[in-house]
Amino acid sequence: MHNNIPTVRWTGDELYILDQTLIPVTVKEIKLSTEEDAYNAIKELKVRGAPAIGVAAAYSLLIDLKSKTNLKADEFIKFLQKRAKYLNSSRPTAVNLSYALNRMLDTIKDKKDKTSLELYNILEAEAKKINSEDVDICQKIGEYGNGLLKENSGILTHCNAGRLAVSGIGTALAPMYIAHQKGKKIRVYADETRPLLQGARLTSFELQEAGIDVTLICDNMAAFIMSKGLIDLVIVGCDRVAENGDAANKIGTMGVAILAKHFNIPFYIACPSTTFDLNTKTGNDIVIEERDAKEIINFAGVQTAPLNMKVRNPAFDVTPNELITGFITEKGIIKAPYIENLKKAFN
Amino acid sequence: MHNNIPTVRWTGDELYILDQTLIPVTVKEIKLSTEEDAYNAIKELKVRGAPAIGVAAAYSLLIDLKSKTNLKADEFIKFLQKRAKYLNSSRPTAVNLSYALNRMLDTIKDKKDKTSLELYNILEAEAKKINSEDVDICQKIGEYGNGLLKENSGILTHCNAGRLAVSGIGTALAPMYIAHQKGKKIRVYADETRPLLQGARLTSFELQEAGIDVTLICDNMAAFIMSKGLIDLVIVGCDRVAENGDAANKIGTMGVAILAKHFNIPFYIACPSTTFDLNTKTGNDIVIEERDAKEIINFAGVQTAPLNMKVRNPAFDVTPNELITGFITEKGIIKAPYIENLKKAFN
Repeated sequence: MHNNIPTVRWTGDELYILDQTLIPVTVKEIKLSTEEDAYNAIKELKVRGAPAIGVAAAYSLLIDLKSKTNLKADEFIKFLQKRAKYLNSSRPTAVNLSYALNRMLDTIKDKKDKTSLELYNILEAEAKKINSEDVDICQKIGEYGNGLLKENSGILTHCNAGRLAVSGIGTALAPMYIAHQKGKKIRVYADETRPLLQGARLTSFELQEAGIDVTLICDNMAAFIMSKGLIDLVIVGCDRVAENGDAANKIGTMGVAILAKHFNIPFYIACPSTTFDLNTKTGNDIVIEERDAKEIINFAGVQTAPLNMKVRNPAFDVTPNELITGFITEKGIIKAPYIENLKKAFN
Repeated sequence: MHNNIPTVRWTGDELYILDQTLIPVTVKEIKLSTEEDAYNAIKELKVRGAPAIGVAAAYSLLIDLKSKTNLKADEFIKFLQKRAKYLNSSRPTAVNLSYALNRMLDTIKDKKDKTSLELYNILEAEAKKINSEDVDICQKIGEYGNGLLKENSGILTHCNAGRLAVSGIGTALAPMYIAHQKGKKIRVYADETRPLLQGARLTSFELQEAGIDVTLICDNMAAFIMSKGLIDLVIVGCDRVAENGDAANKIGTMGVAILAKHFNIPFYIACPSTTFDLNTKTGNDIVIEERDAKEIINFAGVQTAPLNMKVRNPAFDVTPNELITGFITEKGIIKAPYIENLKKAFN
């Protein structure tokens, strides 16, 4: 959050998000008035970051929903199922989106005997719970992760898994916030994260604002910075972890993991347990969203390549489990063997 | 070149360059009327690419030089030494810059008995020779490199070491031009190459214009593309090779080399023998230019990060010799052990 504007804000009647596509130039809330607004806000990354998408999606089920409480309970539930299906189709990779929507629907599924207004109240309470749980989880991730940081540690992060990506202090950035609170001096390097520059626009912005020593680099400078001995560990966020520990995160994460291995630097993923999708066997089963070529051919209206250029634009990649030193979760740090240890932690 | 506009053009009186900072939006020549124009054009990357910098620098010694032929030979030579020193300070990493300037000065150094006009004619002939040799060298590099390409080969390249970087058909891109001429179908992937996007703006542009199948990716997508089995080999250019084979090239090259090693993909550097600086012992002795933070904080006038952001912006990195499968030169492909084989080839 910035100037006390939270990433996602439910007033009890209306849903607001901090439009992350405008940061750092403009820090502005926008209102999501319809389910189409919510769908587009998620699709266009106005709200982004796996946990924040989950929270926004949960509240999005409530948009103008009071006006539907005249429906019979079964029609009301059908209406919500349809809305959830629609919202769930906005982005395919982050598991938190479907997790939050399913969790909301589950709270009302066997309650056809209630009135729609009662169901509404159950749903609103659940959305608030998802939101507040997120805050607690981030705090715990931050505390476990802080245990990995020493005085003067150099930490590389990719994309933005900070305050702006969740309701609390973030996932990948949470250990840095906790370390900073405790007076530990750390040095953070933020990959700018092309094409949408979440590292340059968001991570740089929020860490700088918090008074943490942060240096911005282009994605292709990570090897150089590692080769100079400036990085002690890598911490990134995550959108979905498979049963075997393969982890989908922002495009470029796998490259950073390979570089870290080359330079013998520990590579950690920080994420809440909701990110672990033990129904997905391996990374090969994770759907990777391919986004519009325009994101690469243009930047903020400036043409950066021939207009009819052929482009690949995968939004995520999958880091193979063997490159991951451990997962920093609210239940502690989980290490290999992952099939065994993830099952133990989350079943 | 584009629409018959060469990268560097000497009319016999005036020096023109294709302003590479404007491509692909605008394809326009600019005139370099003073040594300051030449210095700034090199510093600001209006002319870039190690061999093209060499050619431009050689011709830059000639700018408005006829008007100095009333000087005595020793004064004329002193004037040129001063100009060469000034031009040489425009960028520190590429060896071709100092190579071309020294070669120009060497042609006249023991010729104080000549008139300044005679010296002028010697210099002009030498600059033209540097230029035409460059064309021949590229052709040979292309032919040797083409031997590495098979039907349907996927090739990753970084930055721009093509027609726009040299007088001929390029260095790293030369094998692709030759393969294409011979009717071989190849697939090229071009890293966009932040911060100045030479891959997006220049490599994409010139290969697309030549009718070669080229796909643009962000730098952080290279690992993803490799992991999908789409890349058979990497070919990049180079700015300076040390005696032991450590090679300085555009920032991000070392990262690509590490990824290539991880995926067992051959990694080649294409460069003329003038790029080998056997007086430099190892990569540690190569000066790495650090450029202005503005290049990362802004793009084409659009703010992409907090304005007072702390930034690292090294323009080059050094790929350690053990990650390099071979050097594609006009004298053939040179492989390890480099100390021995580079000496054999170039001494």
